[in-house]
Amino acid sequence: MPSVIRAEDVEALARGCAVLGAGGGGDTAVGALMVRQAIEDFGPVTLVELDELAPEDLVMPCGMVGAPTVAIEKFESGEEGGRLCAEVERLWGRPVRCLMPGEIGGSNGLVPLVWAARLGLPVLDADGMGRAFPEIPQVTMHLAGISPSPAVMTDERGNVAVFRACSGAWLERLERAAAVELGGSAASTEYCLTASQASGAVIRGSVTRALRIGTALSASEVSPVDALASRVGAAVLVRGRVTDVERHTTGGFVRGSVVIEGTGDDRDRFVRLELQNENLVAFEAGELLACVPDLISVVDAETGDAISTERLRYGQRVAVLAFPCDPLWRTEEGLRLVGPRAFGYDLDYRPIEELASAHP
Amino acid sequence: MPSVIRAEDVEALARGCAVLGAGGGGDTAVGALMVRQAIEDFGPVTLVELDELAPEDLVMPCGMVGAPTVAIEKFESGEEGGRLCAEVERLWGRPVRCLMPGEIGGSNGLVPLVWAARLGLPVLDADGMGRAFPEIPQVTMHLAGISPSPAVMTDERGNVAVFRACSGAWLERLERAAAVELGGSAASTEYCLTASQASGAVIRGSVTRALRIGTALSASEVSPVDALASRVGAAVLVRGRVTDVERHTTGGFVRGSVVIEGTGDDRDRFVRLELQNENLVAFEAGELLACVPDLISVVDAETGDAISTERLRYGQRVAVLAFPCDPLWRTEEGLRLVGPRAFGYDLDYRPIEELASAHP
Repeated sequence: MPSVIRAEDVEALARGCAVLGAGGGGDTAVGALMVRQAIEDFGPVTLVELDELAPEDLVMPCGMVGAPTVAIEKFESGEEGGRLCAEVERLWGRPVRCLMPGEIGGSNGLVPLVWAARLGLPVLDADGMGRAFPEIPQVTMHLAGISPSPAVMTDERGNVAVFRACSGAWLERLERAAAVELGGSAASTEYCLTASQASGAVIRGSVTRALRIGTALSASEVSPVDALASRVGAAVLVRGRVTDVERHTTGGFVRGSVVIEGTGDDRDRFVRLELQNENLVAFEAGELLACVPDLISVVDAETGDAISTERLRYGQRVAVLAFPCDPLWRTEEGLRLVGPRAFGYDLDYRPIEELASAHP
Repeated sequence: MPSVIRAEDVEALARGCAVLGAGGGGDTAVGALMVRQAIEDFGPVTLVELDELAPEDLVMPCGMVGAPTVAIEKFESGEEGGRLCAEVERLWGRPVRCLMPGEIGGSNGLVPLVWAARLGLPVLDADGMGRAFPEIPQVTMHLAGISPSPAVMTDERGNVAVFRACSGAWLERLERAAAVELGGSAASTEYCLTASQASGAVIRGSVTRALRIGTALSASEVSPVDALASRVGAAVLVRGRVTDVERHTTGGFVRGSVVIEGTGDDRDRFVRLELQNENLVAFEAGELLACVPDLISVVDAETGDAISTERLRYGQRVAVLAFPCDPLWRTEEGLRLVGPRAFGYDLDYRPIEELASAHP
């Protein structure tokens, strides 16, 4: 895998990020255009491994906070990352060594590369989710006890807010309210940490994983969906057509549900996904097919390209894939933070491997 | 007038602040209790004049932001001022010389004294409004071109937010949203300035003015309302009974209207006040009786004590007083910031002196 992301790598990276977004993290179309432009203007982005960093090197996790439905139409200026970085350096009193996607999923796996290219900084080959999640404290850094504060938020106009919250939940409330006020989405950094703190607190290899997934998709001309499923170890929950989409943007989130009616071998089956920015749970006739923190991705039946929750619409021909999350999320603390109950579902987490063997 | 505020001065100060609140600035009952307690625990509060300060001395305007209806039931811990001060000193890199009420009206004229007593700092005998206004940038410092940023906000739990907004309007949006999220009210500082910047940018003598008003009220045993009207140069718009109150707390503000039906010499008259935290306009049969930025205060018919907008209720026997605002607000720029049009009224400002002589 390249230790440098060039313009020609962006498409594969974007396709991989979309799959890992589990429907969320922001639409990758705009993000991919921005990364390509930034690389053309400022040069390629260097990827660094955690082991290449000195223990005290400062890592800045970053990305966009808000509703993906908004981010389709409200673009960044590109200067947000510079402002975040300058503020973090002022607060910590030392330079930022590299950026890291807070979440690899969706455009949030791409936006840090835009900022890194413009700042001439490398990107750490890691992230805090191994996917995308709707809420700010739903990151592995939180599990590891890293403080989310001071968090910095900025927008395309130049507004800057610094938050020192008493907890991750309070930070989520304050940043979400600010993101809503700033137009529905904004750039932010939380859980800044040193390289030595990052060992065990981040998910390694996330950027190259996204690249590999995207490359597998691009390489397969026969059946991209099967190639993708095999690459990520996914169960195909259903193949069919989107027959119902209910979606609204509220309180800085996209919420709703979508129904996929099976076609071909899957005819007469109806699978319902419920979502909050990301696809959270899949049900069929009241039975659980898959749930967070495992990844549920809706992909185009022809190309295998993931369709984000804000792009789902009636009539799309799709396959629904579900595949295992990072093992960090399957611990007791992990499930408390991002399991079904964290999203208000009164059901116990069951790994996709177990559910898939029960519904072969 | 005393250059020190002792426990025995608090009642008069609170009564004066209530009158200058024009219905807003927060209920003074809790504020007065907190000041008295703080003075008992930490000693009296020294008042300083602007002329006593060195040119580069840092003045911290401060108070509570949010809906007064909330502040009646949600109390500060008392430590908010210390957190604001510490953050301001960190941001400016030098000590805060004194606090100043952002607005003298209502409990916001008192809360800075609570913090000053606890911090052992003096309070500048001045404020940024000469009354109370609902929005953060509606201060004389804004007219003078002082930057509102960095602004600092904190709550009783220990959450801290620092805002560098691109304008006063953006600061208002961001702080208002944060105040709502923090439970409907929070402590904040904006427009920090040096003593040399403060000349011409603040309204001098506001604390002692409030004290004098309160003292006049306490001294008059015959007709406190008349004594008050004479003291502040007010026209009595109507004397009567509250017959209708419509009030709701939304978006961090109290909004609504109240109808006073005249009694005695004023019978068959109906005066309607419209409010956003403060009383903004007074109408009678479609005619304007008084409007912002002049002060409209509803006071108890017996005691002359001002009744804040969140305490108005059916059946209260009241007098409605209107009196002139500080001359700074009657300039073109002042009226743009706090005149009737700033609150959405399609009418030109007319001074209370002119309106009162038209409706004698």
